[in-house]
Amino acid sequence: METLSTTKAFGGTQGVYRHASRETGTDMVFSVFVPPQAEQGPRPVIWYLSGLTCTHANVTEKGQFQRVCAELGLIFVAPDTSPRGPGVPDDPEGAYDFGLGAGFYLDATQPPFAANYRMESYVTEELPALVAEQFPADMTRQAITGHSMGGHGALTLALKNPGRWSSVSAFAPIASATRCVWGEKALSGYLGADYQAWRRHDATTLLEDGARVDEILVDQGDADQFMAGQLKPELLREACEKAGVPLTLRLQPGYDHSYYFVSTFMEDHLRWHAERLG
Amino acid sequence: METLSTTKAFGGTQGVYRHASRETGTDMVFSVFVPPQAEQGPRPVIWYLSGLTCTHANVTEKGQFQRVCAELGLIFVAPDTSPRGPGVPDDPEGAYDFGLGAGFYLDATQPPFAANYRMESYVTEELPALVAEQFPADMTRQAITGHSMGGHGALTLALKNPGRWSSVSAFAPIASATRCVWGEKALSGYLGADYQAWRRHDATTLLEDGARVDEILVDQGDADQFMAGQLKPELLREACEKAGVPLTLRLQPGYDHSYYFVSTFMEDHLRWHAERLG
Repeated sequence: METLSTTKAFGGTQGVYRHASRETGTDMVFSVFVPPQAEQGPRPVIWYLSGLTCTHANVTEKGQFQRVCAELGLIFVAPDTSPRGPGVPDDPEGAYDFGLGAGFYLDATQPPFAANYRMESYVTEELPALVAEQFPADMTRQAITGHSMGGHGALTLALKNPGRWSSVSAFAPIASATRCVWGEKALSGYLGADYQAWRRHDATTLLEDGARVDEILVDQGDADQFMAGQLKPELLREACEKAGVPLTLRLQPGYDHSYYFVSTFMEDHLRWHAERLG
Repeated sequence: METLSTTKAFGGTQGVYRHASRETGTDMVFSVFVPPQAEQGPRPVIWYLSGLTCTHANVTEKGQFQRVCAELGLIFVAPDTSPRGPGVPDDPEGAYDFGLGAGFYLDATQPPFAANYRMESYVTEELPALVAEQFPADMTRQAITGHSMGGHGALTLALKNPGRWSSVSAFAPIASATRCVWGEKALSGYLGADYQAWRRHDATTLLEDGARVDEILVDQGDADQFMAGQLKPELLREACEKAGVPLTLRLQPGYDHSYYFVSTFMEDHLRWHAERLG
């Protein structure tokens, strides 16, 4: 692992790192904030999965999490959203919603994507092992959250890995990847026409198929341009009701899909996770 | 004035605006955060002047001021750092420290810069008049701060305009523009070899020449790569001591020159100004 930068922030250290990923076959860049309390011993970890077009940098620079993580003693990890680099296949037309910047936190099965697009294994196995090795992380206490496509990632990965994360929340998540244009394009491109396989990458179908988490916190701006067409929070509400999973879904009046929305509610999410991390 | 974007953030509104500037002869873009309290009546204004290479966007996206401004009821205005656009002369070699992105908050007298580089008049006269007209601003209560070149701007403009701002602070300011490479290049380029004219654009020489403010707050990271060569906070300390101006100069261990430094201490500065704004 190579350190690209470390910067003191709010008493802790905001770092950016690069490593050669076995899963993606590429170099991957990610950021880690280590709070000052880590000098006294290992700290719990919150994973933040970013949305379409983002890298680690968006939330790192605009997410306003450092102050609260420094107060609560949380390590904050932000992975990239896809493999990148020479030879990594992209959307044939370079669209923003597939390929580079749009890995959807799954392991692709279709050529030419299957070789590099292994973001599920990367985020759930390879990167956690690296974080455990390189940072003062208490890996018995982890939480996960994310924004938009990353909210989809947080919800689906938490549902598929019970107990792995103490708590899961999301900011304006794609609620049902099998039932929106973004998700249909991604799932067909990465997984082909095997609809049964799609059901493992949709929070609502995972719930239908019996996957469970203790509870979910979601914030959603009601002025979000993608809410009605892509995010569809009502589908998550329905699925949670049927499954008996407690969902706190807060429609935030006037907020859009931007990092101004994410940063406004970041503190609430961090405190909510910290309570559950103990 | 044209609205480029407005986004809800922390209960207030983060806006970005463009207008045709009389002073610079160009379109100018700036940002304004209006806190939720403005619905009940005019609010005090804090001016933030940015550093070399920046636009309004750097502090707007990375400064982490919105939460505290929303709590304290402060309007936060971030101008650009220079004129920009077709026909605006730049550094002959495109260097980052002169011309575009490097207006130094003065009115140039030398060709070809004199026509557009009128950032002192722009920031002290034209833009405040526009803000007073277009926003719920209490212009009897204003404060000023800035970072690096913008810290130089905040200090020199406050010293030249007694009473205009209730309080002045700076993050890692250029303490003495006449005694550092950045400043010498800018002052000679914009003002020529008239050294008497230079003294009006240096916080320390203004203090020597009798200009006064009630007090000054400065934070400076001690791991700032520009501290020794360009910023020279000790020159401000000497000048304030000689002038009898109370200076709180805090050397912050481990912090660099980035927005992680600025955002870490932004809350302190905003609360300090809010106390003085009454």
